[in-house]
Amino acid sequence: MSKKALSILMRARMRPNSNSNHSVSPLSLTNAVKQMQRHRNSREGQSAGGASREENSASNDSGSSEREFMHVRASMDSAVSMNKTEFLDDALNNFSEGYFSFSHENRRKLLLLLAREYDLNRSQVCELIKQYLALELPADKAQVSEEEGLFASFYRIERNLRHALKPVYEVLFERLNTHPGGLRFLSILRADILYILTEENIASLRALDSYLHEKLSTWLSPATLELHQITWDDPASLLEKIVAYEAVHPISNLLDLKRRLGIGRRCFGYLHPAIPGEPLIFIEVALLKNIAHSIQDVLEDSPPIPESEATCALFYSISSTQPGLAGINLGKFLIKRVITLVKREMPHISTFATLSPIPGFMQWLLSKLACQKRLAEGDMSQTLTEGSNLTFYEKILKPEEEEALMSLPKDLAMGQTGMETMFNLLTSTSYKWIHSSELVSVLKSPLMRLCARYILQEKKRGKALDSVANFHLQNGAMVERINWMADRSENGLSQSAGIMVNYVYRLGHIEEYAHSYFSNGEIHASSDLRHYVESDKKQ
Amino acid sequence: MSKKALSILMRARMRPNSNSNHSVSPLSLTNAVKQMQRHRNSREGQSAGGASREENSASNDSGSSEREFMHVRASMDSAVSMNKTEFLDDALNNFSEGYFSFSHENRRKLLLLLAREYDLNRSQVCELIKQYLALELPADKAQVSEEEGLFASFYRIERNLRHALKPVYEVLFERLNTHPGGLRFLSILRADILYILTEENIASLRALDSYLHEKLSTWLSPATLELHQITWDDPASLLEKIVAYEAVHPISNLLDLKRRLGIGRRCFGYLHPAIPGEPLIFIEVALLKNIAHSIQDVLEDSPPIPESEATCALFYSISSTQPGLAGINLGKFLIKRVITLVKREMPHISTFATLSPIPGFMQWLLSKLACQKRLAEGDMSQTLTEGSNLTFYEKILKPEEEEALMSLPKDLAMGQTGMETMFNLLTSTSYKWIHSSELVSVLKSPLMRLCARYILQEKKRGKALDSVANFHLQNGAMVERINWMADRSENGLSQSAGIMVNYVYRLGHIEEYAHSYFSNGEIHASSDLRHYVESDKKQ
Repeated sequence: MSKKALSILMRARMRPNSNSNHSVSPLSLTNAVKQMQRHRNSREGQSAGGASREENSASNDSGSSEREFMHVRASMDSAVSMNKTEFLDDALNNFSEGYFSFSHENRRKLLLLLAREYDLNRSQVCELIKQYLALELPADKAQVSEEEGLFASFYRIERNLRHALKPVYEVLFERLNTHPGGLRFLSILRADILYILTEENIASLRALDSYLHEKLSTWLSPATLELHQITWDDPASLLEKIVAYEAVHPISNLLDLKRRLGIGRRCFGYLHPAIPGEPLIFIEVALLKNIAHSIQDVLEDSPPIPESEATCALFYSISSTQPGLAGINLGKFLIKRVITLVKREMPHISTFATLSPIPGFMQWLLSKLACQKRLAEGDMSQTLTEGSNLTFYEKILKPEEEEALMSLPKDLAMGQTGMETMFNLLTSTSYKWIHSSELVSVLKSPLMRLCARYILQEKKRGKALDSVANFHLQNGAMVERINWMADRSENGLSQSAGIMVNYVYRLGHIEEYAHSYFSNGEIHASSDLRHYVESDKKQ
Repeated sequence: MSKKALSILMRARMRPNSNSNHSVSPLSLTNAVKQMQRHRNSREGQSAGGASREENSASNDSGSSEREFMHVRASMDSAVSMNKTEFLDDALNNFSEGYFSFSHENRRKLLLLLAREYDLNRSQVCELIKQYLALELPADKAQVSEEEGLFASFYRIERNLRHALKPVYEVLFERLNTHPGGLRFLSILRADILYILTEENIASLRALDSYLHEKLSTWLSPATLELHQITWDDPASLLEKIVAYEAVHPISNLLDLKRRLGIGRRCFGYLHPAIPGEPLIFIEVALLKNIAHSIQDVLEDSPPIPESEATCALFYSISSTQPGLAGINLGKFLIKRVITLVKREMPHISTFATLSPIPGFMQWLLSKLACQKRLAEGDMSQTLTEGSNLTFYEKILKPEEEEALMSLPKDLAMGQTGMETMFNLLTSTSYKWIHSSELVSVLKSPLMRLCARYILQEKKRGKALDSVANFHLQNGAMVERINWMADRSENGLSQSAGIMVNYVYRLGHIEEYAHSYFSNGEIHASSDLRHYVESDKKQ
């Protein structure tokens, strides 16, 4: 999963863990939790226990902070340099507990110190490199077998070089990986690193991240993960995690959760033996007669159809729980395994589809409209000298769409051009346009058409610009259908004017589609979808 | 575990798997099995089904061998270069099945090809190295934080260099590791590599082995292994493995096996999720009143004492099942976990000891005696010019021992000196010396004394020369006691004149002892043991 895809799939709604003394969440979540707490407190009038604790710990900083810092730093150093396993466990525990108790600033300081002071030994690398260059390669490869002896020195220095190129912090990572709770701690460490990197681009920290990312990818290979069907019989502590981390369609109450685990529904998670009771990623599935058109159909489908009548397994939500695992595509393997499992258990199910958000559509469309508006106003020079992006005037709307927008009554919509009117409508407070059938009927056609274009044609480095589209396409899905008014929630309207998309995983074509998308960015789409775009071209 | 220790702990008595069409055992075992088969056939008069199949497949070689070889080679190549996971699984299956069907010669050819043709890209490494040397390190490390930017190029090239230094065959290893059955296949591949290396020292193959060894160490870290108590309720297919692989004290029949899993006994194995139903290593434990003096006491202790009366957990056998995992110390972690587990379940047990063979004692003693005999005969010049090892004349026997040996009646023992007499007695056919109480009483004193010296003082590169001693000492045990006539089996007599040793794992001192042994070769021993050696010095 790309970092971006994951970050979107993952906007975790985590509840603070009130019976813990430490903040065992990454920085990003700590902040998110603070905001949520404030939000919920103001909305629900709850006591601000969690939030005030967080703030207290932050204001404590200046006092004992330096001493604390030195203490945790010392335990980190022991954890790297120690040889005896008995004390090593203590050092690792002290280090992780100390780290969890740290303020944002101390975490940042410690991570930078780890990245810089526990780096590799460059003079040793240079020494080996010089030895290596002094060796002479046998000219003729065919002679290799006779010259085995010659190669022995190559092998030796290459092995030494491989070791010398390992940063010292690898020892810490390796040790934490085999330490109880260590893998989870590493995932939090990485979440913090990523959070800091969004604020400052620090080369050493970026190198630390890239190394940790590689390590985590190896440790979390699909072979090490256990597919677990999450049911109402699971421990409440696990189900609580599902509620906390469901990122796409928040679970409103216990009944809602129970329905998502009940008849006609499935929920599967990937668990790692070292992080028990907490799926790293989970997917929610609805068993339906046909591919659903709207998320409300799925969430409020009560009672569900008998499972024996289902022909479609609809993946309506996939959520990662670990921001620190960004860039590790667990979702791809999870989807494949779930397809295999469902197909085996219910051979009557022949369609595997998603009902997915289009998180980037409105942002893309509004910036496009704003830019064209400026260009249309003759503000050409400014745009060009800004040099931010060379954009040329483009008729985003078809003449008939432009016309329909311009002919709207002025009390409903304002604007010098159709594009401006559209921009104003889409940015209106409380999405008032959806309450007017006249506005809806005028906007539907251009929005659907532009949405198809956004999904099928807007690319970044050869890959779909939309993060969720990119996620499913790289997993081998095709774009089947876009659905008008499929998600009327505030979130759905602000992301994609309420439009949702069905991606379909076609059995027997998954690898082929993944491959052609991977190698030349080709996006497979149904003829309906292609029709939107082709009519666009003819214009 | 050192390779040597493991190779000794592991002399596998594997039964051929008669319902398989392929030889899925490593080369070394295939040969061992052939020998065993012949042995058993001649002894037990069984049909030679297994052995003749092996030989047939070997004699088939010349015919279709080349075509077969090219076929498996092609699947190996696909397994390395392929991107699509669907076909990748097929390629990996074809490769492993093809490999299993190979003769010794074809396996050797394929492994050499893998080592040489799927090596790393040396010109790419050289290119990166030159780029690296062109960079300039900031002179002052304190300036680092201001010069972050400068470091970015270092990080980049170091990362690229790390990747370039990975041989191409790493892809194959990584893919096999996550492929069902792949880890077991890799362990067999490595067993074959090690077997070939005992016959020929090939640099590229040694590099392949060293790389695979490192990979396997990571994948088989104790965190990935499951401790399993093996009981009579386990599947017969697993129990069969215990019978096949018990290397130290062969299991003679079903009753014997049942007793080893019954009251007063425990058997624990380490299982890896990817190699189900087959422990990688297992340990057999007897719950006793005191540390046992002889293996017969343990094996024939019937009925065992009530478990509630036990104060000692005696590790009387530890066997590895995978020759391909040589050099990966699983035993150390297994012993520690078993100690923790037993201690928790039975707090009345306070002593954790072994009753261990001394596999190298007789070999060491006989070569010492032979050498001294030659020196005594004035054959000094030859020894020195051979230059094999500069050995000086040494009074191996104390005067009273020498005297006792020389005063034996001539019909019992022959020799010009005490040492020669001893040598002749110890190498006599069928160990006839143990049947004469007179000979036993004369030999006991020098043999016990020299055995203590062998265990406590004979070193190789600072570590105990005896492989089993080295294994337990590096795990943190101390030498408690040596036992006369502790193993009267043919094997016990030929290895160590029937002497066995108790190593003790002293709770609270395990790490300390392991550390002092690791850092300066210090061997902790009971005062009784030290007494043997000190009296030796006074001489």
